[in-house]
Amino acid sequence: MKHPFFKNYGPFKIKDLLNDLKSNITENVSDETIYDIKDLQTADKEHLTFFHSKKYQLHASKTKASYCVTLKNLAHYLPKECKAVCVDNVLLIISQLTSKFYPDATNDDFDNSVKKIEGLNFDSKIKNGRNVLVGENVNIGKNCSIGHNTIIEKNVNIGSDCSIGSNVIIRNTIIENNVAILDGCIIGKKGFGFFPKKQKNLRYPHIGIVIIGENSEIGSGATIDRGSMSNTIIGKNTYLDNQIHIAHNNKIGDNCIIAGQVGFAGSSTLGNNVMIGGQAGISGHLKIGNNVQIGGGSGVIKDIPDNSKVMGYPSKDLRQFLKDNK
Amino acid sequence: MKHPFFKNYGPFKIKDLLNDLKSNITENVSDETIYDIKDLQTADKEHLTFFHSKKYQLHASKTKASYCVTLKNLAHYLPKECKAVCVDNVLLIISQLTSKFYPDATNDDFDNSVKKIEGLNFDSKIKNGRNVLVGENVNIGKNCSIGHNTIIEKNVNIGSDCSIGSNVIIRNTIIENNVAILDGCIIGKKGFGFFPKKQKNLRYPHIGIVIIGENSEIGSGATIDRGSMSNTIIGKNTYLDNQIHIAHNNKIGDNCIIAGQVGFAGSSTLGNNVMIGGQAGISGHLKIGNNVQIGGGSGVIKDIPDNSKVMGYPSKDLRQFLKDNK
Amino acid sequence: MKHPFFKNYGPFKIKDLLNDLKSNITENVSDETIYDIKDLQTADKEHLTFFHSKKYQLHASKTKASYCVTLKNLAHYLPKECKAVCVDNVLLIISQLTSKFYPDATNDDFDNSVKKIEGLNFDSKIKNGRNVLVGENVNIGKNCSIGHNTIIEKNVNIGSDCSIGSNVIIRNTIIENNVAILDGCIIGKKGFGFFPKKQKNLRYPHIGIVIIGENSEIGSGATIDRGSMSNTIIGKNTYLDNQIHIAHNNKIGDNCIIAGQVGFAGSSTLGNNVMIGGQAGISGHLKIGNNVQIGGGSGVIKDIPDNSKVMGYPSKDLRQFLKDNK
Repeated sequence: MKHPFFKNYGPFKIKDLLNDLKSNITENVSDETIYDIKDLQTADKEHLTFFHSKKYQLHASKTKASYCVTLKNLAHYLPKECKAVCVDNVLLIISQLTSKFYPDATNDDFDNSVKKIEGLNFDSKIKNGRNVLVGENVNIGKNCSIGHNTIIEKNVNIGSDCSIGSNVIIRNTIIENNVAILDGCIIGKKGFGFFPKKQKNLRYPHIGIVIIGENSEIGSGATIDRGSMSNTIIGKNTYLDNQIHIAHNNKIGDNCIIAGQVGFAGSSTLGNNVMIGGQAGISGHLKIGNNVQIGGGSGVIKDIPDNSKVMGYPSKDLRQFLKDNK
Repeated sequence: MKHPFFKNYGPFKIKDLLNDLKSNITENVSDETIYDIKDLQTADKEHLTFFHSKKYQLHASKTKASYCVTLKNLAHYLPKECKAVCVDNVLLIISQLTSKFYPDATNDDFDNSVKKIEGLNFDSKIKNGRNVLVGENVNIGKNCSIGHNTIIEKNVNIGSDCSIGSNVIIRNTIIENNVAILDGCIIGKKGFGFFPKKQKNLRYPHIGIVIIGENSEIGSGATIDRGSMSNTIIGKNTYLDNQIHIAHNNKIGDNCIIAGQVGFAGSSTLGNNVMIGGQAGISGHLKIGNNVQIGGGSGVIKDIPDNSKVMGYPSKDLRQFLKDNK
Repeated sequence: MKHPFFKNYGPFKIKDLLNDLKSNITENVSDETIYDIKDLQTADKEHLTFFHSKKYQLHASKTKASYCVTLKNLAHYLPKECKAVCVDNVLLIISQLTSKFYPDATNDDFDNSVKKIEGLNFDSKIKNGRNVLVGENVNIGKNCSIGHNTIIEKNVNIGSDCSIGSNVIIRNTIIENNVAILDGCIIGKKGFGFFPKKQKNLRYPHIGIVIIGENSEIGSGATIDRGSMSNTIIGKNTYLDNQIHIAHNNKIGDNCIIAGQVGFAGSSTLGNNVMIGGQAGISGHLKIGNNVQIGGGSGVIKDIPDNSKVMGYPSKDLRQFLKDNK
């Protein structure tokens, strides 16, 4: 599948890709052509992928990629058809390679391509405020309303019957039908992901996007960052209150209700029908089940199974929390 | 009293109101005329009110309303003059009825009525920035300053000597004299109140407003939502630091000092002279007394009596907190 | 050193300064001239300083100031060359005196001096969005990009190769080279500092500025307040995630990584290479060492020595926290 938003500057010869890194990588270097860079599950033949933690061994053993950047001690998990490129720092190398394919995904300077909406050929049924700016590769459905000073930068699809507030900034995002984005939201910028280096950190590209499911509502002042390799997803009919922060790669289910000032650290998955009280924080790389209830102010640092109620910092079973704090 | 901001589409015959609900409500249906919908305390003769929890039995027993939507097991608390309309889900029914009286209070699309301030007939002593937009039914007192890109949507009264920052959005709000609203605040939007329903939640109207007392200051990036049936109130000479979230129906007293990133879940009452440290959270439907001090980071989930000092999550007596954490 | 941004309305005769206060201060009143008002460490001859807590006795004993506003029981710490002006409320008096020297630092109304950037004489290599406003006394280096609707109010120095997002507001700030300020940030406003008074609090001037070191990044929606007497400082190559609040006078070191929604109460010092997890809060007037790691959601209320890992509310040694919460 072609990337919906970022231009793929490939294909490249695998040989040239590896040479450019000026590293000592010499194994498996051939003349083959690589068309794209993907994660283990979505990679296909003639794609490059990466595998940096044992945690993903199951996905690794089934990947269809032709090449995989990995660690020496993980290479044996890969299927025979996938050639291992062994390096010391998988994420650093994959970041550099991703930048070759998608150089436009690293730099998030403001979009200079925007034009005033009045000059563009949108459906006459769009109701727009003053000073609305719209970039390239933007689609807007019927019966939408877009508030004052709002900036729809490039690479945005908005469904029909959506209400976008004022002072909103959106880029690299798919918004389904009947979604409300309230005032002051900032959606689709690069996530807080980089390699720490003294003097000057190394930013890696974020080629994921944000997807917001139909009938959902995003409260005022939310920040929702786009994913790095995968997408940041808000399910259908999920309501977010004000001042919520959703970092890159989080996947939030359907029918969730999330109260004010909640924060997600990144790469966590939330089931359906989850309720979260105000100011709770969800650490990174967690799996929160369906029908979970998380009390206000909780700090969640472990996975939570389906149908649980938790509260506390760190969060524990709600009954236990109430008992401990009588 | 006429609603200051939202148009009342009544009066309606009580018979027609109830028929429209397509429910099985048949009791007490008559030809009487209902002029408004109010809470138990403010409702008057020929008004409709609602009563959904035993907690409010005292108010219920004294209501002056002619009709009250309630539960079968609560109806006996009402005075004889008030006829009970018994339903299974009071809040859902009252939400539908409120939408009949005040249909404009459900939808919070941006205000399309705004005009550039320069064309409007305000006092020449207003100092305004570039690109300031002002809607219908807005009054602004003398010696006010209004920053760049600020949007005063319809239904706003601003007193004299107020300083409104840049990139601010205000609607459905009364601001008294000498108030400072700093940059990036969003004030007066509908609260985070709705009936959860699979596929598509049901939004209910918010006919409350926001009132900010004289000499107060609201820090940058605050979100203050308007009330549902009652108002959201900030007292006089109360100072809020940056990034504070005040949900609908909260009532905050005079001379309070509230530090950065504090959040209020909704419908709580705060006394006068209350001090709250940074990042504290106040759950919904609580009563916090006068002269209370709440430590930074606290999670308040119970009422707090006058003159108390608390800290912790959940919050407890400050001395106990310090002892427990030596 | 001349103040880089605020106009100094001095010099004043010490006699006149003290008379204006209408207080009973009679000691040490002479005809000497005072050129500036500074803190204990930076004050020089013919400057006025202040000393209000034993905590600062070492700095007090070495101050070069000619006069010092202080308490009777602290005066004996001052060197002989520095004359004590003893008062009951040091901070209140110093606030009034500071307002005499720097009256422009108390009022933070929007900057009415701004002009559209297109009419100003900046380097042609600046890439700017629509509706960018720039005030007086602003310098912008080469190869900068400034997003839509951004307001650079007066008193801002921006280095070269900086990327400023859209809807940003900056004033009274020095930004070094290669800094990224993401969308919606509000930087350089007065801090949340004032003297509580019934009916009407007394705002004191903030004559500090904000300094952001080279190669740093400030995430979307941050609020960074300028200092009161000293400056608010973000070190070099320090990255802040979204929705962070940094109150006045904080000094943050180099190579720090601070996750989303973290808040700083004010006047704390952070070393280099500090990592802070999401939603943590740092109380005021603390000293956090180098190479410290603070877990997400922590509430830090004590100093932390170099090389420590802490977590919890209140924060404690990380191992202890994990053990206590097994």
